[in-house]
Amino acid sequence: MRNDNLTRTYMPRHRALARAAAAYQPAEHASASSALSEALAQYYIKQEPYYRLINDEVELYEAAYSVRMPIMLKGPTGCGKTRFVEYMAWKLGKPLITVACNEDMTASDLVGRYLLDASGTRWQDGPLTVAARHGAICYLDEVVEARQDTTVVIHPLTDARRMLPLEKKGEVVEAHPDFQLVISYNPGYQSLMKDLKQSTKQRFGALDFNYPEHAVEAEIVAYESGVSLEIAKNLVHIGERARNLKGHGLDEGLSTRMLIYAGSLISKGVSPLAACRVALVRPITDDPDMRDALDSAVTTYF
Amino acid sequence: MRNDNLTRTYMPRHRALARAAAAYQPAEHASASSALSEALAQYYIKQEPYYRLINDEVELYEAAYSVRMPIMLKGPTGCGKTRFVEYMAWKLGKPLITVACNEDMTASDLVGRYLLDASGTRWQDGPLTVAARHGAICYLDEVVEARQDTTVVIHPLTDARRMLPLEKKGEVVEAHPDFQLVISYNPGYQSLMKDLKQSTKQRFGALDFNYPEHAVEAEIVAYESGVSLEIAKNLVHIGERARNLKGHGLDEGLSTRMLIYAGSLISKGVSPLAACRVALVRPITDDPDMRDALDSAVTTYF
Amino acid sequence: MRNDNLTRTYMPRHRALARAAAAYQPAEHASASSALSEALAQYYIKQEPYYRLINDEVELYEAAYSVRMPIMLKGPTGCGKTRFVEYMAWKLGKPLITVACNEDMTASDLVGRYLLDASGTRWQDGPLTVAARHGAICYLDEVVEARQDTTVVIHPLTDARRMLPLEKKGEVVEAHPDFQLVISYNPGYQSLMKDLKQSTKQRFGALDFNYPEHAVEAEIVAYESGVSLEIAKNLVHIGERARNLKGHGLDEGLSTRMLIYAGSLISKGVSPLAACRVALVRPITDDPDMRDALDSAVTTYF
Amino acid sequence: MRNDNLTRTYMPRHRALARAAAAYQPAEHASASSALSEALAQYYIKQEPYYRLINDEVELYEAAYSVRMPIMLKGPTGCGKTRFVEYMAWKLGKPLITVACNEDMTASDLVGRYLLDASGTRWQDGPLTVAARHGAICYLDEVVEARQDTTVVIHPLTDARRMLPLEKKGEVVEAHPDFQLVISYNPGYQSLMKDLKQSTKQRFGALDFNYPEHAVEAEIVAYESGVSLEIAKNLVHIGERARNLKGHGLDEGLSTRMLIYAGSLISKGVSPLAACRVALVRPITDDPDMRDALDSAVTTYF
Amino acid sequence: MRNDNLTRTYMPRHRALARAAAAYQPAEHASASSALSEALAQYYIKQEPYYRLINDEVELYEAAYSVRMPIMLKGPTGCGKTRFVEYMAWKLGKPLITVACNEDMTASDLVGRYLLDASGTRWQDGPLTVAARHGAICYLDEVVEARQDTTVVIHPLTDARRMLPLEKKGEVVEAHPDFQLVISYNPGYQSLMKDLKQSTKQRFGALDFNYPEHAVEAEIVAYESGVSLEIAKNLVHIGERARNLKGHGLDEGLSTRMLIYAGSLISKGVSPLAACRVALVRPITDDPDMRDALDSAVTTYF
Amino acid sequence: MRNDNLTRTYMPRHRALARAAAAYQPAEHASASSALSEALAQYYIKQEPYYRLINDEVELYEAAYSVRMPIMLKGPTGCGKTRFVEYMAWKLGKPLITVACNEDMTASDLVGRYLLDASGTRWQDGPLTVAARHGAICYLDEVVEARQDTTVVIHPLTDARRMLPLEKKGEVVEAHPDFQLVISYNPGYQSLMKDLKQSTKQRFGALDFNYPEHAVEAEIVAYESGVSLEIAKNLVHIGERARNLKGHGLDEGLSTRMLIYAGSLISKGVSPLAACRVALVRPITDDPDMRDALDSAVTTYF
Repeated sequence: MRNDNLTRTYMPRHRALARAAAAYQPAEHASASSALSEALAQYYIKQEPYYRLINDEVELYEAAYSVRMPIMLKGPTGCGKTRFVEYMAWKLGKPLITVACNEDMTASDLVGRYLLDASGTRWQDGPLTVAARHGAICYLDEVVEARQDTTVVIHPLTDARRMLPLEKKGEVVEAHPDFQLVISYNPGYQSLMKDLKQSTKQRFGALDFNYPEHAVEAEIVAYESGVSLEIAKNLVHIGERARNLKGHGLDEGLSTRMLIYAGSLISKGVSPLAACRVALVRPITDDPDMRDALDSAVTTYF
Repeated sequence: MRNDNLTRTYMPRHRALARAAAAYQPAEHASASSALSEALAQYYIKQEPYYRLINDEVELYEAAYSVRMPIMLKGPTGCGKTRFVEYMAWKLGKPLITVACNEDMTASDLVGRYLLDASGTRWQDGPLTVAARHGAICYLDEVVEARQDTTVVIHPLTDARRMLPLEKKGEVVEAHPDFQLVISYNPGYQSLMKDLKQSTKQRFGALDFNYPEHAVEAEIVAYESGVSLEIAKNLVHIGERARNLKGHGLDEGLSTRMLIYAGSLISKGVSPLAACRVALVRPITDDPDMRDALDSAVTTYF
Repeated sequence: MRNDNLTRTYMPRHRALARAAAAYQPAEHASASSALSEALAQYYIKQEPYYRLINDEVELYEAAYSVRMPIMLKGPTGCGKTRFVEYMAWKLGKPLITVACNEDMTASDLVGRYLLDASGTRWQDGPLTVAARHGAICYLDEVVEARQDTTVVIHPLTDARRMLPLEKKGEVVEAHPDFQLVISYNPGYQSLMKDLKQSTKQRFGALDFNYPEHAVEAEIVAYESGVSLEIAKNLVHIGERARNLKGHGLDEGLSTRMLIYAGSLISKGVSPLAACRVALVRPITDDPDMRDALDSAVTTYF
Repeated sequence: MRNDNLTRTYMPRHRALARAAAAYQPAEHASASSALSEALAQYYIKQEPYYRLINDEVELYEAAYSVRMPIMLKGPTGCGKTRFVEYMAWKLGKPLITVACNEDMTASDLVGRYLLDASGTRWQDGPLTVAARHGAICYLDEVVEARQDTTVVIHPLTDARRMLPLEKKGEVVEAHPDFQLVISYNPGYQSLMKDLKQSTKQRFGALDFNYPEHAVEAEIVAYESGVSLEIAKNLVHIGERARNLKGHGLDEGLSTRMLIYAGSLISKGVSPLAACRVALVRPITDDPDMRDALDSAVTTYF
Repeated sequence: MRNDNLTRTYMPRHRALARAAAAYQPAEHASASSALSEALAQYYIKQEPYYRLINDEVELYEAAYSVRMPIMLKGPTGCGKTRFVEYMAWKLGKPLITVACNEDMTASDLVGRYLLDASGTRWQDGPLTVAARHGAICYLDEVVEARQDTTVVIHPLTDARRMLPLEKKGEVVEAHPDFQLVISYNPGYQSLMKDLKQSTKQRFGALDFNYPEHAVEAEIVAYESGVSLEIAKNLVHIGERARNLKGHGLDEGLSTRMLIYAGSLISKGVSPLAACRVALVRPITDDPDMRDALDSAVTTYF
Repeated sequence: MRNDNLTRTYMPRHRALARAAAAYQPAEHASASSALSEALAQYYIKQEPYYRLINDEVELYEAAYSVRMPIMLKGPTGCGKTRFVEYMAWKLGKPLITVACNEDMTASDLVGRYLLDASGTRWQDGPLTVAARHGAICYLDEVVEARQDTTVVIHPLTDARRMLPLEKKGEVVEAHPDFQLVISYNPGYQSLMKDLKQSTKQRFGALDFNYPEHAVEAEIVAYESGVSLEIAKNLVHIGERARNLKGHGLDEGLSTRMLIYAGSLISKGVSPLAACRVALVRPITDDPDMRDALDSAVTTYF
């Protein structure tokens, strides 16, 4: 039960949001903000991305964003996590800064570093700092690939403090009220050696993603590749066959993205058999038996 | 038994405190101290943080601070250790510098380094040096994650000498009389490979933390998330169920912070079931059986 | 089935192609483009490379290029993958930038870095950025040898976004409409430790390569080395014998390139036996039994 | 048997001492030595440190110093090794430079490095070089933690040559006649992976340290913490109980330093039970059984 | 069979040779070439190295050089591989740049790097680039010791392209028509962890080397050390005895180079027994039994 | 048998010596050589080091130096290898540059590197280059500790070429005719992981060292420490007892250096028992049984 003397007590997340909003709102209409706007301009999604709603994920994300809860998107490769974030950024009208994480990425790659200039060193904000300072959604793709210092650096941004200490610069950035952190995570991938620490996981709400159901996926494939719905349905059938082989010789099933690739070749005049060979079968396995199984799945439908 | 000729003998900790106090107190009223004050200004906790007293931890901390004993806060993720330090810093009226430790952090990240400037190299104090020099409480969060050089660097600050040698600069910083070092430590986490050295542990007094008892935790959840006390109590029931699963399929229980997340979504109009799914269940496990167990715990209370 | 309101919706790959084309086409006829053209000039294949068509690989590649699908060339060492890319670049009239990947290559080696200049730091595009910015085919040879950050850096260039974030520079490069990414991959090589991630593999269409069949390979050897077709056929016979030993004491068979080497020595007057010893047998094995087996294969044909 | 023609033969250690003394003594009375004196001034121990003599360790150290034999102090954590060196430095009237070694420390951290200045690079002596050049006692605390290059770098300073080659600077520093090297070493710690090389050990004389006997330790605790001798004796009893548990569940016993910590809290008004819990029990173990055993030891005496 | 329209088709190796020759030949007579000549001057072998022909290796090397085939010299330590390359470089009148490879060598050590100059950064060619640009034979000694990036960097120089991309400089160096790459390789050494990749091996022709037969080796030892042929023969007998022990307690046999060392001592007046002890037995083994076996071999002949 | 036309053929080692001598001898009498002389001045051994001849090692070393054969000194810690090199350098009148090798030393530490100066980068010769360029004996102490690149870098200096390529500087240094390379090696130390490569070992003649026999060692101890010969003999007896324990609980025996340490304390008035405890027993073992065994050996003789 919330009591009345809210403003006199300590509610850091709400306060941080309010304080930052006060500080930034005038600036956004002033001339000094033009450089700022420019920096972010390239990160706005200018047109509505094609996104096919699956469930209540849009609604849940909007609620999470309204309290700026950090969000973790869980699901397999190529099922639409990146597209979903782009869609939400467009819907909310916020800039989106995407960082593909990898094991050689350092905290400095996220936070920023000093560069040597004609007049000495100059600080340059990293993508996470740009997002926190100017109010973008920051999307860390496959965050589990990154080194631990990269994941620990996000902690103070994901709890009540909503701040980012730039230790090398001696500055503490208070997150802009529009800032939100989103990460993606593929549960099928994680090994014992490489997993998010519990103290990181507990800082995020989580949304599950998976390949869409048959009719929806066919609609997506048809729309994105330009093939007829009938051909798209056949491609989805092949995809489903392959997904059933996951764990029985295939590390991962065929993604929606791969089905779209195959459709694109077909719509360019390539024969369906050749298109499926190039875009679906050859990329994911070199095992002769698996290739036979997948090739025969292809010939069943084309 | 303390004898009378105290001032003529060697009591380094007390002496260091006294000497440093003498050196700093005038400066604090002089104009030259304005830059100093400015550097620290951003580290003061301006308003009383919401902290619900559990036991005698505030009293013990005050006694420890009065002799500037270094303190180690032990306890699981998200149980309120960071909030407690913020509260004590506010109560004692001291600035607080927090550093989230990680395995790629070097001693230089704590102590400082030379930067290249228009006019050559310039020394920049790291957060630990700023705290020691100007008299802040320095809080090293999850210090066990840091590399050994980071933990050894704090040794001379934690025994009778209370000094910090900046070897690269050729300076020995005597700690400001207000300086105190605080570290956090999660006993459930430590592996054989990663633990504090005994010679480090023995330099700290220790306070234990854990999740608060039912009624207190419900009060906290209601206060911080804005839900009714009744809903908060249900969330705490769910949290307790999950904590009982720790070691039987869950690596760690649900933290108070996660319960507040769920409450925040509910107070934004999300249905309790969806809110718990997003904020409690999905983030901590991908195991279908565990998810079922947790989901049924949720439906029991909502 | 593609609908009509295409231009009002979100089809990033097509859009990115169109937008970039609009931006670049005028520039290509302007004077400002001369520096650009110069930078790329050295990457054009000036004369038709000798390439002997095996199957429908040219046709498939052209279809893939028409939708700018990223392509993975699979096959053993020295079977003509590099020559094929050179031929396609010549046929399509596009510049080709080749990068030989290795395990010490960093993402910066691909993307670019700041260099220190008389007037401070200056950004220098890496080969991948040059290709993406100015519209070349970028060929990453033996990409699996590279460190993970090198492979992750290509992700945003290989999905619908077709963009390359230069995080250190704070710039997002939209790929030129002519840009395409090609990688090579030797399936016989990959160990458990070193393989492409599934999330990388799924971003590419794949074409299989192998040593050509007898008559075709003899034609190639004769053409490239200058020996008679008869001698070339004998060399190919020896090559086929050696390929049958693969897995029975030889790690890999004799490549077409090695047969051409042997032919070159013969056409310079070296005796066939000595030429085969130097160019075929000695390089691939130090095992006495294997050497005997191969030497006797040589004496069978010469 | 020493012969008479000593000065005509080669006795490097004695010679080095004599030569260096001749070179430095005038300088110490000249004006040019003021900068030098200043650099060392901060390293003098200004007042007699409290040190309770245990055995003949002071006498032995003085003899070792008189021939400048390098000394190794062996003993467990917190038993007074650092205090002893401070006491000896005070007694001998020599400056003391202490370096806390760690596994990330490099030889350059000890010896010095080039820094970039407004007018190019400038050499800066490291702590070992400062000590060798100007005649301080250099104390390398827990030297076994350092990397091998750090331990090898001290070799030419610890044999007859008494010199320190600064290879990066192209200078050979002859040690000042007052210079002596002291290292500490905790035998209970060393693993197979981390031990001093025999060729390093053989360069040092060794003094053993341990916790003082009951009456002496109580006197120290009372003196340093300000509690009555009676309370101090009880604290020492608890300490002895804990030391008996070493190897039976405790990695290391309670150090004298910890007993002083507990005493300090008691003299600030904290109840003895709480003080012992915070300062003795909680820091060294998280095992419930061990905590019970230690807690009951506490309640026996308070 | 080579066809007539050679000049209109694609024969990269021949073309690259021709094109580069055209570009460089004028330059070699121009004044601008003096700096170039100077750079290479120190790499010419000014006098005929003593080389004792063993087989047809000179003839085969000349044929390989005539088509600029990259060459791999295989054989044990100290059997004359380096001397052979020096002899061939002298015979062909080409400069020779030798690089002793090691596991800490980077691709930059071979290819070149930017250096910081008074006027900013300046590119400096590495030895491989100097050789490729100006037309030297580049000899990479014990190439298998180098890191993989060092071996992959030579790939584009060893196939039909004959080019060296300087990725950091954004330049593609076309190899000078005189350039040839030679590597050495000791088959007895290679472990599973350290071997050339098949895709590297297949780019080289290979010549085998071994210790010369008795009479030839004695002649070499006598010539190089200045001892009589009789003594030389005895030294060779001892060498042969030791080589028979290879694999039965000795890792490697005695090299010709060691026999020459022993001979040199003898020709300086050292007794043969002492010379053999110092130059042959003591260096290669510390095993008492092995030393006895070798010592008795020595006493048999002297 | 050496033939007459020596000067017209290729004898690189002799030639290199002659050529370099011709180049340097005038310079040594010119004014330009003063800077050079100065650089080396600090490396001359000014007075005869005390060295007690054991066998024919001086004679053998002189013969080896006369042909500039690289020499490896083998033997345990503290038996006099370093003193022997100092003695030989004094006897031959050559400067001596000693480098204590360690596993973090890089090739650049030996060879040299670019430093950043007020006017850009400036090359600074490393100790090996100084020795090779100006004609010193270069002594690499415990070379097996160094990384492989450090050992490979010495190869071209140790065969007939006698040259040192400074690859980063693009210069090839021809060794001065006075230059010789000496390394030390402790056979008892080497593990499988850390040993000299055969191709390195074969480039050196080897001299064996060990602790001297009883009477000689006593003479040395008396001379160096100032105790009577009787006491020295007792110390040597203790040393011999300890050496018999090597392999039965002690990793290495007591070195002559340690006996001198003990003698030094005794000659300063410390009781023999205490002196032996400090200087002999405590440094080499922490095992109580070993300490008892050694202590009783001490009491037997004092």
